[in-house]
Amino acid sequence: MPIRNIPVIPTPYYQYDLGLLDNTLALASSGSSRYGFHIHYALKANYDPRILSGIREAGFGVDCVSLNEVQYALAGGFEPSTIVFAGVGKSDLEIEEALLSGILCLNIESVEELEVVGMIAARLQVKAPVVLRVNPDLPAMTHPHITTGLKVNKFGIAVARLQEALVRCKNQPWLNFLGLHFHIGSQISSQQPFEALCQAANRIWHDFDISGHGATMINLGGGLGIDYLDPVNNPIPDFEGFFKLFHDKLDLPGEISRHFELGRSLTGQCGALVTRVLYVKKGAGKRHVIVDAGMTELIRPALYGAIHLIENITTIDGAEMYDVVGPICESSDCFGKDIILPYTFRGDLLKIYSCGAYAESMSMNYNLRGTIGKVYLEGHSKSSAKVIPMTGLQRFSAVR
Amino acid sequence: MPIRNIPVIPTPYYQYDLGLLDNTLALASSGSSRYGFHIHYALKANYDPRILSGIREAGFGVDCVSLNEVQYALAGGFEPSTIVFAGVGKSDLEIEEALLSGILCLNIESVEELEVVGMIAARLQVKAPVVLRVNPDLPAMTHPHITTGLKVNKFGIAVARLQEALVRCKNQPWLNFLGLHFHIGSQISSQQPFEALCQAANRIWHDFDISGHGATMINLGGGLGIDYLDPVNNPIPDFEGFFKLFHDKLDLPGEISRHFELGRSLTGQCGALVTRVLYVKKGAGKRHVIVDAGMTELIRPALYGAIHLIENITTIDGAEMYDVVGPICESSDCFGKDIILPYTFRGDLLKIYSCGAYAESMSMNYNLRGTIGKVYLEGHSKSSAKVIPMTGLQRFSAVR
Repeated sequence: MPIRNIPVIPTPYYQYDLGLLDNTLALASSGSSRYGFHIHYALKANYDPRILSGIREAGFGVDCVSLNEVQYALAGGFEPSTIVFAGVGKSDLEIEEALLSGILCLNIESVEELEVVGMIAARLQVKAPVVLRVNPDLPAMTHPHITTGLKVNKFGIAVARLQEALVRCKNQPWLNFLGLHFHIGSQISSQQPFEALCQAANRIWHDFDISGHGATMINLGGGLGIDYLDPVNNPIPDFEGFFKLFHDKLDLPGEISRHFELGRSLTGQCGALVTRVLYVKKGAGKRHVIVDAGMTELIRPALYGAIHLIENITTIDGAEMYDVVGPICESSDCFGKDIILPYTFRGDLLKIYSCGAYAESMSMNYNLRGTIGKVYLEGHSKSSAKVIPMTGLQRFSAVR
Repeated sequence: MPIRNIPVIPTPYYQYDLGLLDNTLALASSGSSRYGFHIHYALKANYDPRILSGIREAGFGVDCVSLNEVQYALAGGFEPSTIVFAGVGKSDLEIEEALLSGILCLNIESVEELEVVGMIAARLQVKAPVVLRVNPDLPAMTHPHITTGLKVNKFGIAVARLQEALVRCKNQPWLNFLGLHFHIGSQISSQQPFEALCQAANRIWHDFDISGHGATMINLGGGLGIDYLDPVNNPIPDFEGFFKLFHDKLDLPGEISRHFELGRSLTGQCGALVTRVLYVKKGAGKRHVIVDAGMTELIRPALYGAIHLIENITTIDGAEMYDVVGPICESSDCFGKDIILPYTFRGDLLKIYSCGAYAESMSMNYNLRGTIGKVYLEGHSKSSAKVIPMTGLQRFSAVR
């Protein structure tokens, strides 16, 4: 049973559909600019340079969570004034360099961090632009690993300590208080958590007289989910509805600039992981499709129990139940349990959807797997959002 | 509140106690050589070159799960005849190169793989040394992610298909059948699963007349657990008991060579992750110790819910309950929930134990964290197994 066909480039590889990315960015841009909202791309979702170019060209800023990310964004041509530096564990060196780089702001996650930032700013004689991240104690109704807005989480300043933080900002001349930041979690698929966030933000803004403290901005974070179950028919999230909700529900002075941090919703659907079937193994009561991609290239199923749509892009004949597993020596290295695929054979190519966010950026060299290649799809029709396989691969589909 | 002291090298860093490693390897060696058993180190546990040198000098071979690992082991000076190549997803290229490199054997995970190996061997006109991995359908009573011996797992040839595999070996002149392989899981802490494995191996060996098929070896895998809860007082697993059990319970002809694949049990306790406290954050009802190491350096707690002992090596005064969390923007980036530490302050160094296996080798560049440094402790006293901090760090403990 020789392998059925030869790949154009070695499998596995990430496939980025730059046309879909452009369409997605265009809708996010039109949805937000209507209200004068600002988008900062959550860089950690995907560092690919061509994706990053698209983000920059769309006019978005960047949300960074390490100094390395800040420097990567600067090297990628982003204006310092569009860069936000967030994260609960900024080291002294990171704070120092960030203050000297002239970025828009540091999102401050605790009173203790505020103290350190103030000290470093005083030593450098640089005004530190700070935005206070408030933990509103709201459930995001999503996976516990990616819920961040509950008070037991490590994220943000508890409402009970916000006054203390505001006073510290007022009393420390090297702290330049710019506003508040919220981020309640990731992969949120209903409007209700965002509505609750708006209500909490309104209440906190007014209760603590944030405008009176000289605030000029509010950052509502991100968290807009994507459709992992039906990425083909629903490749672009409802940015219009998302931003409209914040426009309708936020009750803040008009001059306060509104900022959002979107990651997954911008890049998640433009990426796929294409992998070749090495073996179809018939065990006791199970058929395992063993592919050449593993948790080293996509850890979300192992780490979060995440579900990604898997398609056999070589064949459409028949239907059979399979477990799709990778080559890594872990039972958790499994992309799909008991899923239906066409009759699948050694040599077939499978496409794992929705790998444009938190796939490549979370890849690892475990088992000394090395780094896999990438294919970029360009010139995608504006009228269709379906990701099409590149020509070379389509040709293979006909070969048996 | 200035940071309390300056690190010798930047934190976080991996600290490898080569003295403890030597003691561990010596006991594994004496425990196995008494019976003429062979040990192959599961390279995926840790690729550190100095650890690998210790393994080689102890006279052990290597268990590899990718061609890159095979080539890394060869470059590290291991004899091809001591290298085993395992893994459920060997690609054609990997099989080809492995056959040409003259390694001891390929552990074959399925009849389907056996077919491919036979084809490639025939094309290359090279005899393929194959060992058949049998899935004995035994529970290892451990974390579901690292249980590998159940028939629903992707690993090994089901007993129901073993005869078919043996016949294929007999009929394919380019397949050189060497014996059987078993591996029922990882981090096994009781003798019972290993006893059950011996019983299964004995039964299968006799039922299928494996000796009659010309077998010369059996590989019992690894899985010997380490004490994550008390690594200080119990740093070296009971190798003597482990090997004695197999000596006592295996009922196979004496000339059949016995092989074992040990990873975690050899290197797990010799490594620690040393990390600095960036902030001690008092939230609503929680104290978070935010450290500068994250799931990027140690993913086991996030991935498996693994527990690692955490010690404050700067101070011993007082006792308080904390969550110890990393800087990564994920709630899963947590090393310990509700654990008791001395009163812990910004600047303190924490030591996370048992990071010699599956920590560095599973590290990732997420959040563009980069690669952290390493410290090697040498010249450890043979009489004590307690890991001592290096002199430089001890000095810091006195500084307030």
